[in-house]
Amino acid sequence: MNRPTLPFDLAVPIIQAPMAGVSTPALAAAVSNAGGLGSIGIGASTVTNARQMIEETRALTVRPFNVNVFCHEPARRDPARERAWLDHLTPFFNELGTPAPTSLSEIYTSFLVDDEAFEMLLAERPPIVSFHFGIPSPDRLAAFRKAGIKTMATATNPREAERIEKAGIDVIIAQGIEAGGHRGTFNPSEVDEEWSTSVLVRSLARQTKLPIVATGGIMDGRGIKAALELGASGAQLGTAFISCPESAANASYRRALKSARAATTRLTSVVSGRPARSMVNRFIVYAETAGSPAPAAYPLAYDAAKQLNAAAMKHDDDGFAAQWAGQGAPLARELAAAELLTTLAREMT
Amino acid sequence: MNRPTLPFDLAVPIIQAPMAGVSTPALAAAVSNAGGLGSIGIGASTVTNARQMIEETRALTVRPFNVNVFCHEPARRDPARERAWLDHLTPFFNELGTPAPTSLSEIYTSFLVDDEAFEMLLAERPPIVSFHFGIPSPDRLAAFRKAGIKTMATATNPREAERIEKAGIDVIIAQGIEAGGHRGTFNPSEVDEEWSTSVLVRSLARQTKLPIVATGGIMDGRGIKAALELGASGAQLGTAFISCPESAANASYRRALKSARAATTRLTSVVSGRPARSMVNRFIVYAETAGSPAPAAYPLAYDAAKQLNAAAMKHDDDGFAAQWAGQGAPLARELAAAELLTTLAREMT
Repeated sequence: MNRPTLPFDLAVPIIQAPMAGVSTPALAAAVSNAGGLGSIGIGASTVTNARQMIEETRALTVRPFNVNVFCHEPARRDPARERAWLDHLTPFFNELGTPAPTSLSEIYTSFLVDDEAFEMLLAERPPIVSFHFGIPSPDRLAAFRKAGIKTMATATNPREAERIEKAGIDVIIAQGIEAGGHRGTFNPSEVDEEWSTSVLVRSLARQTKLPIVATGGIMDGRGIKAALELGASGAQLGTAFISCPESAANASYRRALKSARAATTRLTSVVSGRPARSMVNRFIVYAETAGSPAPAAYPLAYDAAKQLNAAAMKHDDDGFAAQWAGQGAPLARELAAAELLTTLAREMT
Repeated sequence: MNRPTLPFDLAVPIIQAPMAGVSTPALAAAVSNAGGLGSIGIGASTVTNARQMIEETRALTVRPFNVNVFCHEPARRDPARERAWLDHLTPFFNELGTPAPTSLSEIYTSFLVDDEAFEMLLAERPPIVSFHFGIPSPDRLAAFRKAGIKTMATATNPREAERIEKAGIDVIIAQGIEAGGHRGTFNPSEVDEEWSTSVLVRSLARQTKLPIVATGGIMDGRGIKAALELGASGAQLGTAFISCPESAANASYRRALKSARAATTRLTSVVSGRPARSMVNRFIVYAETAGSPAPAAYPLAYDAAKQLNAAAMKHDDDGFAAQWAGQGAPLARELAAAELLTTLAREMT
């Protein structure tokens, strides 16, 4: 194979996926302490909260950990499209007895235009920073390199992998169509070939000398070994970690993962405005009905979905929750993070 | 793993996929002689031709080989839908200067209702018969068992696998979303979870004690090893064999597989009426345009597509050809079948 090892000091080449809103400093630290690479996602956090999460993680582990940011193109505003989307969702706002918003907000600032987050990361210097939805500018990457920060970025196809390699990023996260949560596609308006993790990893292994991390549909040690066989240098697991007690997943999300619903996931743009794989719920079914308007751009659509979810959760109704999950969700186990890590490592032998 | 081995006498657990219209007795025999399991597909053949193909294969090898039949529910006729589909395609018939048909024919008889094909198979007694799109009746399966014929059937999800196991079939072909050609879905009107080969194999390995053959996106020995790691007892490769000199693929199909087009496949129902993965061509792009009517049922839609292709090929235009290919098509190699088999076996070590 002659594939490189990951340029991090890990006992096992297993990365816990960042999963903004689900991962926590406790989860990341537990994974890192157990010999894997824990991650926190700060793409949905304020800079103040992000700094705090990094410091909390550092307080819990001396091992390497990873901080993930969102590098999407900032939303192109389109009042007519946003209005149509809000109109489409108004029956739900009415049903939940909460006023429909009159406009949508860009609830996340892209790292591409977030100088404050960049300066914070440079100052905090986490061992590893990873990028989703795109890659930062050459000068920011140069600054990270100079600061000794290793970098990783998600590719969903060979073209994105090529851009990542040319940018001088250290590791390619090869995300297959099976993956839960947001697909890392750079430009969601391009046709998506929807390659599986296996096909993508096998292809990238021939294309690049960079280390590749397989992600999407991997739930156990056998899955990790299979990915290594295909040429990956490591595997990133997200859904497998949601049920850990250290995660921030709420009770209804955990229940859903243990239920028959886990077998029914769908890649949809209606929750956030970008394709993401979620367990199917009432909101998705309605919002995707034939004849529905196009969702507002990311993350504008997410603003609406989050407001609906907040209103519904007051009545313990999780029919509007973003319950991301990969295709492998039925294989998820409920273990503490350290135990899951050692189980995965044992299954790899 | 404690997974069973395939109940056939093979040197390597590699099956060449049936691929009606592409596989030939020469291809199947070359694969079987090289220690794998060669297959012919007779779902699109008359009983006379099918018998001849079986006899030709038997004349070329003393090793086990596999004969595949289509077990789809016969088309439910719907004159309005068929008329709308023909109207949709009429501009192409006009352009190609060939009269649009006034009605569509069921060009393939389902094995479920084909007594003559059943009797022929019982009389010819090929070592293995495999089923796609469904499974035959219990009495036919009992007759095959009594005749010493081993059986395999395609599953695209856990429910189909359960039905296959309950029917007493010997091997489950676990077909992931990456696979080229027709998806084996029993009932295409059900929601398709579109599981990748990896997720499906890993799940079925926990569900059943039957041997599982992984198929979809597997192009080389590393891919086969990865599938075995996940719990498969063997792997079935289709796209990897199309370019073999022994296949019936025409020159334009072979050229397309070597071109950049190989990287752009799509699962579409517009060619045949059932979901199948194909390299994208002009016909597919047009026939899938937003607002297009639903394709006529399988195999009625295929009647129209085949007529268009026949007319276009007179002008060396392959824009209407059914050029099936899996997601792994860019990794295809051009080797004689025996050499491909030995290469795959070597890559597995």
